[in-house]
Amino acid sequence: MSRPQQLMTPGPTAVPPEVLHALARPVIHHRSPDFAEVFGVAEERLRAVYRTKNDVLVFTASGTGAFESAIVNLHSPGDRVLAVSQGEFGERWQKLAAVFGCDVVPLTYAWGESPTPDDVRAALAESGAGTVLLVHSETSTGVVCDLEPLLAVCSDAGALSIVDAVSSLAAVPLETDAWGADVVITGSQKALMSPPGLAFASVSDRAWERAATASLPRFYWDWERQRKAQAQGSTPSTPATSLVVAVVEALGLVLEHGLEASFARHRALGRACRAGIKQMGLELYSPDDDSAAVLTGALTPDGIDAVALRLALRDRHGITIAGGHGELVPRLFRIGHIGHVGIEELAGTLAALEEELAAAGADVEPGRAAPAAYEAFGTVATA
Amino acid sequence: MSRPQQLMTPGPTAVPPEVLHALARPVIHHRSPDFAEVFGVAEERLRAVYRTKNDVLVFTASGTGAFESAIVNLHSPGDRVLAVSQGEFGERWQKLAAVFGCDVVPLTYAWGESPTPDDVRAALAESGAGTVLLVHSETSTGVVCDLEPLLAVCSDAGALSIVDAVSSLAAVPLETDAWGADVVITGSQKALMSPPGLAFASVSDRAWERAATASLPRFYWDWERQRKAQAQGSTPSTPATSLVVAVVEALGLVLEHGLEASFARHRALGRACRAGIKQMGLELYSPDDDSAAVLTGALTPDGIDAVALRLALRDRHGITIAGGHGELVPRLFRIGHIGHVGIEELAGTLAALEEELAAAGADVEPGRAAPAAYEAFGTVATA
Repeated sequence: MSRPQQLMTPGPTAVPPEVLHALARPVIHHRSPDFAEVFGVAEERLRAVYRTKNDVLVFTASGTGAFESAIVNLHSPGDRVLAVSQGEFGERWQKLAAVFGCDVVPLTYAWGESPTPDDVRAALAESGAGTVLLVHSETSTGVVCDLEPLLAVCSDAGALSIVDAVSSLAAVPLETDAWGADVVITGSQKALMSPPGLAFASVSDRAWERAATASLPRFYWDWERQRKAQAQGSTPSTPATSLVVAVVEALGLVLEHGLEASFARHRALGRACRAGIKQMGLELYSPDDDSAAVLTGALTPDGIDAVALRLALRDRHGITIAGGHGELVPRLFRIGHIGHVGIEELAGTLAALEEELAAAGADVEPGRAAPAAYEAFGTVATA
Repeated sequence: MSRPQQLMTPGPTAVPPEVLHALARPVIHHRSPDFAEVFGVAEERLRAVYRTKNDVLVFTASGTGAFESAIVNLHSPGDRVLAVSQGEFGERWQKLAAVFGCDVVPLTYAWGESPTPDDVRAALAESGAGTVLLVHSETSTGVVCDLEPLLAVCSDAGALSIVDAVSSLAAVPLETDAWGADVVITGSQKALMSPPGLAFASVSDRAWERAATASLPRFYWDWERQRKAQAQGSTPSTPATSLVVAVVEALGLVLEHGLEASFARHRALGRACRAGIKQMGLELYSPDDDSAAVLTGALTPDGIDAVALRLALRDRHGITIAGGHGELVPRLFRIGHIGHVGIEELAGTLAALEEELAAAGADVEPGRAAPAAYEAFGTVATA
């Protein structure tokens, strides 16, 4: 295996040493008072990060698994679902809902666009859909949509909302209860600063009512079984106990520093990254505003291959950044700045990028991106 | 949290320190050459432990999740499934298959019994079922069935077999290819000596053929998506990368010591545990023969509460054993002796049991169970 990598990706993200140490504790049994205690703390801290009084269900799975759980627990065959997409993950949820027999009404934006309340309102009025699928942070493009008014449109229309918040929760503001989000899905491996393998779904009272009559079959994903087991301090089948222990530690760190501080730090990191990218003269792919607090996407200059650039960063600097999808593969790279990452790691990444761009023949003068990033970052505490 | 616990449970089991250390390594990205390399080693070692040339699919889930994947990938609504049950897990698979619309033909034995080839042959002939669900090691009772002739009956009838080997694989002999098992399910947290959170399914060519026409909906569990992603060195959605790293380490230990040595050790540990239990004058619940190599179940003497006994072991000795289900809760306890456990931990557990039984007023003389266990264990290397 090559040298250890600094993950500057939009998930999995770097995990703090305290969390790695927690992961290495002896395994605990999932039907024991020890686990019940840890699990109770996990649930309490999850509710705090979600800003909700709702149940937060804990699945051993990726975020896709938890999203699937929402589809199969809330629908009967033929139920009409408005599936809003502005990128790769929105398209995934359109496909997933269709696979399970939902009558999917797509509202598809070009990659990089952001959904608007007017469009969603009109599509809901026309379709009469009972559920709306929304992507809060579209990890493929860096777009974080303005979720609150979209959720208000859903509530007004009496439609349930299912929100993909996998790369947004704890990085940017998301008020589950105050904004009336029915189901919010996230994963352990992004701003929650934990290894991948756990996924979470908050479930509102309205969603529980719907689940009681929804007829799609479910067993592993069955929310009612899950709720009963969680009330007893465990899960229906063996959970990834070590990951639960790790996530408790990570959530403790997040909450200790405070969610508002986290939001401010992510916003400042986004500013810093954009400043560095622009200093290099590169074209931004992600939005050029404070909404882009999760990741920054940029295009390489003509003639510079993004894949080769990423490999050079990886092999020569020990820094992993993400690439693009489809036809954007040769040009797009994405720098994640969520979770356990500070201005130091970001500035180091930008400095390494400058070096490699210059080495590849781009018109870039090394030594300017990091200072620009530090300046844009300002005086916000890195926590 | 209370003191660290020695897990003497039939899963999750104790994890070797090398594996815990691997777990604490920095998180790696699932779309990277680093992960592809580690994942390739995991697949290769899994095939070695399974003794198969088949694909072994890797899911972030519990064993129940991987079992569900077999049901939804191999069936269309109304497909007839012979579901053989001899305990809790067999009953779970009967329910699960029914939830997804299979026409379940139950072949249900009393808990503690073991299925016979003649019964399965007759039930297959009568039902014409195209699939047979089998439990190799029934963790609720300690019964490890004689799998090879059962699989031969399935093959003779042209039925696909789905084998729950969650607590058996690597503990007792299971020849996936030589015995013709179509789908074998296991989990990371038993004899594979890893934390819970990963589950595995081997898939034969015949099973792939069936999957190509089976129409039950699937997305997270979709085998074809999974196979394509694994061919690229990853999984369709983010896997529990740290658990993959840990399982590679654990499988390395298992294979280094050798599967035959592991089978011999588990057989000897079973003998040792039974000798200790009998020395105390307790009634065995699990079989009194070498098939019971995974766990030993026993009943407390009249008037001794099994739940209180387990709590005393936990709180005063730091040893966690498992309990019983349903009406057996007040009497049954189960000692797991799979995975990273030696005669020393087992003898210590038996000695602590003696102490607590005597303290609770049972007619037990401390100091005799451990020597009996050592004697029955014999000279087999503990590896």
